[in-house]
Amino acid sequence: MTDIKIPLRDMRFAMRELLDWDQHYASLGYEEATPDLVDAILEEGAKFCENVLAPLNAVGDQQGCTWNDGEVTTPEGFKEAYQQFVEAGWPSLAHDVEYGGQGLPPSLGTLMSEMVGTTNWSWGMYPGLSHGAMNTLEAHGTEEQKATYLTKLVEGTWTGTMCLTEPHCGTDLGILRTKAEPNADGSYAITGTKIFISAGEHDMAENIVHIVLARLPDAPAGTKGISLFIVPKFLPTAEGSVGERNGVACGSLEHKMGIHGNATAVLNFDGAKGFLIGPPNKGLNCMFTFMNTARLGTALQGLAHAEAGFQKSLAYAKDRLQMRSLSGAKNPEGAADPIIVHPDVRRMLLTQKAFAEGGRMLISLCAQQVDRTHKGSDEDKKEAEDLLAFLTPIAKAFLTETGFESANLGLQCFGGHGYISEWGMEQNVRDARIATIYEGTTGIQALDLLGRKVLMSQGELLRKFTKQVHKFCQAEIDTEALAPFVSRLQELNKEWGDVTMHVGALAMENPDEVGAASVDYLMYSGYVVLGFLWARAAKVASDKLAAGEGDADFYRAKLATARFYFDRILPRTAAHAAAMKSGAGNLMDLDAEHFAF
Amino acid sequence: MTDIKIPLRDMRFAMRELLDWDQHYASLGYEEATPDLVDAILEEGAKFCENVLAPLNAVGDQQGCTWNDGEVTTPEGFKEAYQQFVEAGWPSLAHDVEYGGQGLPPSLGTLMSEMVGTTNWSWGMYPGLSHGAMNTLEAHGTEEQKATYLTKLVEGTWTGTMCLTEPHCGTDLGILRTKAEPNADGSYAITGTKIFISAGEHDMAENIVHIVLARLPDAPAGTKGISLFIVPKFLPTAEGSVGERNGVACGSLEHKMGIHGNATAVLNFDGAKGFLIGPPNKGLNCMFTFMNTARLGTALQGLAHAEAGFQKSLAYAKDRLQMRSLSGAKNPEGAADPIIVHPDVRRMLLTQKAFAEGGRMLISLCAQQVDRTHKGSDEDKKEAEDLLAFLTPIAKAFLTETGFESANLGLQCFGGHGYISEWGMEQNVRDARIATIYEGTTGIQALDLLGRKVLMSQGELLRKFTKQVHKFCQAEIDTEALAPFVSRLQELNKEWGDVTMHVGALAMENPDEVGAASVDYLMYSGYVVLGFLWARAAKVASDKLAAGEGDADFYRAKLATARFYFDRILPRTAAHAAAMKSGAGNLMDLDAEHFAF
Repeated sequence: MTDIKIPLRDMRFAMRELLDWDQHYASLGYEEATPDLVDAILEEGAKFCENVLAPLNAVGDQQGCTWNDGEVTTPEGFKEAYQQFVEAGWPSLAHDVEYGGQGLPPSLGTLMSEMVGTTNWSWGMYPGLSHGAMNTLEAHGTEEQKATYLTKLVEGTWTGTMCLTEPHCGTDLGILRTKAEPNADGSYAITGTKIFISAGEHDMAENIVHIVLARLPDAPAGTKGISLFIVPKFLPTAEGSVGERNGVACGSLEHKMGIHGNATAVLNFDGAKGFLIGPPNKGLNCMFTFMNTARLGTALQGLAHAEAGFQKSLAYAKDRLQMRSLSGAKNPEGAADPIIVHPDVRRMLLTQKAFAEGGRMLISLCAQQVDRTHKGSDEDKKEAEDLLAFLTPIAKAFLTETGFESANLGLQCFGGHGYISEWGMEQNVRDARIATIYEGTTGIQALDLLGRKVLMSQGELLRKFTKQVHKFCQAEIDTEALAPFVSRLQELNKEWGDVTMHVGALAMENPDEVGAASVDYLMYSGYVVLGFLWARAAKVASDKLAAGEGDADFYRAKLATARFYFDRILPRTAAHAAAMKSGAGNLMDLDAEHFAF
Repeated sequence: MTDIKIPLRDMRFAMRELLDWDQHYASLGYEEATPDLVDAILEEGAKFCENVLAPLNAVGDQQGCTWNDGEVTTPEGFKEAYQQFVEAGWPSLAHDVEYGGQGLPPSLGTLMSEMVGTTNWSWGMYPGLSHGAMNTLEAHGTEEQKATYLTKLVEGTWTGTMCLTEPHCGTDLGILRTKAEPNADGSYAITGTKIFISAGEHDMAENIVHIVLARLPDAPAGTKGISLFIVPKFLPTAEGSVGERNGVACGSLEHKMGIHGNATAVLNFDGAKGFLIGPPNKGLNCMFTFMNTARLGTALQGLAHAEAGFQKSLAYAKDRLQMRSLSGAKNPEGAADPIIVHPDVRRMLLTQKAFAEGGRMLISLCAQQVDRTHKGSDEDKKEAEDLLAFLTPIAKAFLTETGFESANLGLQCFGGHGYISEWGMEQNVRDARIATIYEGTTGIQALDLLGRKVLMSQGELLRKFTKQVHKFCQAEIDTEALAPFVSRLQELNKEWGDVTMHVGALAMENPDEVGAASVDYLMYSGYVVLGFLWARAAKVASDKLAAGEGDADFYRAKLATARFYFDRILPRTAAHAAAMKSGAGNLMDLDAEHFAF
């Protein structure tokens, strides 16, 4: 089996050469995040991921988590790896110094999450969920809550979860039933059942801090009556250590398609002691802090599986001898040619490469905006928030859909061997499959993008982005090396606006037009956003080549991948545009009772 | 969990109303295949599949097959179900009366395979592989071989396999190494290792007839030196019963992503006694009899998983309450609306429906041609063979790709619940995943279509098909009810020819252009072929509606699905056409060493 190597060269390309993070960090006042420190962190992180986490990826899949009378045992080696991770200080990397953090930029934490996720997604979910809990506490917790819980989460000795889903409600949180009844001491008694709780119970940390949505007794119906609570597995003592067991228990673990190394728990809250975070009945708003972190974290998953599958299928394609090239033997001494000589194998490899590297650029762009929302000027903040609001649903849904496609192409490169467990390709597909579902399905992200972000802003958030694209195209219109990209990008950028107007007009007549267009709209947007990033990458590469700087082969490969993307991937926009324009009638006219006979 | 119902109404639509099998059977001289008998067989078969096979589908996945010192135990109930299947005479349905068969049309056997596969694909592979072995023996066996082996296979007391793949070769059979050395008695000693042998070892039948590719000592190198052998697990006695154990043993079973109920065996042949079928060194030609059967059988798998996923997700979508319709509550008394009110859920359901029902039409069309190759006049035979040669790679690759897409959409409709094993949706995805790989990957089917079938025939096989499409369009150009379909179909039909000319011209300069265009060409072709069938279905439906015949709701649903297909699925052709036209350079120019840094 191929060992995963962290693609540090490409990560540096995205963050440094494309997005100039060195300057970005300096301008935001992250003085400590010097290029040298950033490089040292990346290299140290890569080492940990390659040497410690990657070997546990198959183990996690094979052993899964085991439940025994409420206690959950994680796969062999998971706990020890987590101890090393904590000892090295990784959980604290990008968190507030006031609570024990290292105060480095959140975007550096994202790079670390990418490395962790690429080598072992299931393991990475344990610390991953903690980040969401930390962000929620940072934003909405009281000083006392921060002192008690946040410091432990930053340290990594405790982990966090996010408890939203109940058996009868996932997307539709307005109908959730978990109750929170006031106790005399100001705390609340939380009662109800939560399901699908990732990292919900395990043996890796001494305590688990559940962030739970529940209803107060007098709460209004629907989403306006939901409040947010901290419910620790063990109640902290006055000294801050682990005290009495709280009334929350893991009833069982789900049997699922993949991510076996992560415990997906059913949690029964039976009058468990909980502490309100943020104002009563505003839980959903507070939860969005967590959700946005989680959505970017999940967007990353698409990239992680695309990269892992790409690396393994590339190695296999260079090694596996099968058939001769149609244009003449390329390995005449061997029994056959390596399959990388075949155009269709290259199509599959390049698709994975274009989505992995393109996804890396998009994630890096988003992560950069998160830094700006933390430390930027007010104007900077507003701009970054708007861009992030627009890009988050695209990144989440588009990268996970294309990540799943990529994982499947990786498997396909292996032929029958891909279907067999030993190569790890089918695990990569099974693990990738959840990403288009949790943290809001592709359909939900699409409604968020088209309904809330684009149409509710009267197109403002879209225009801010298309203006950037337009500006780039105008600036490069005469750059010969970019000719294959710029005119096409300009056309699509215009069509994007037109199709939005078209759907917006239809939606004024019939709100179902939004849902009918939404997923095609999201995918269309994703292809154009990645097209913009690939065109910018091509610009960087052609500038470097013109200047004779750096490794010419690397930059030529960037140009070749950009060309592949524009020639063979971007035309998919046509199918999505046509589907969107066709209107809601072809979906809505058929009576529900007449779908089958 | 929803029980699968065999879609008899839709099967009758495809075979009877669209393709007029009643008349087709009568004209070929299948006198016994009267409408009444056909209906009785379908109903009896449906009952068996629904009641016996469907309940074993999850069992097969959970238990899998177990290997113990060369012996393989199938999941609980598999053996008993097979006994019932044999007792009811199902294996003999469409085979020659001379060898104990019922002499009914092969197409009826295809319908039975569809029903079996939709309820339990893994189980269906055991009798499924036997059909290929039977067809090979029918076409190439001696009278003695037929008397000895075919009768047992037709009876169902023995099953068959297909032993091609070796560890170092799958697609590239030219490099296979299994040896066949002549014994003094006219038999051969077969030595070598075969892998990925479906139904390769099990406890369901008293003997297993392996059809094995191997090389004679003096065989020329490459594909022209391969011969075909019968290697039974137990050597038959002179009386035709099971005798001495032969030198073939199951070394292990593969651990794989899905189809756990079917044993994927490593078979070690250690001087096993084998009997040559067909002429020496012509084994690959003989094997194609088997392969074509198997390819249509696998095409069916796409349809089977699309149908199974569709039925389950449709039931769930009507039942699951989540969120309100954007155009106002549709279930105001409930806590929320059933998710089938949401346009995007309908998009996912209709995509599955369009591929399942469209796939059914395509399979039925192919099965009809198989009947004609058996019993038609010489002219009829030639026409059917040509059409089958053209449609087989399309059906195999396109239906399995869209079947996998459909299975994934079925899972997606369930949200997080789809990822959990209990609903069966993730099993459906895992089982479906193999279909684009075995019996020739999508890439191999695509080369077969574009290279061998279309370009090597100078476009003749394509033209025969596009002429039919053209004829239909000309005849219906003024039919108002078909207006949304006919003009679009005509355009695509013309573009199909143009794009073929374009790629053909490029390929004259550079043979890699074939491989570079092939998969996009295949998918493009598949969308147009299904478009043609959906347009014809729309014609049948609109005629019935105009005449006031039959269940109007059924026909209206057909028209609605055709419209959905034309509006929202067929535009994908644009993306494939653009990718094909972009040429091989964007795939071939990048040096293999520069795919990653």
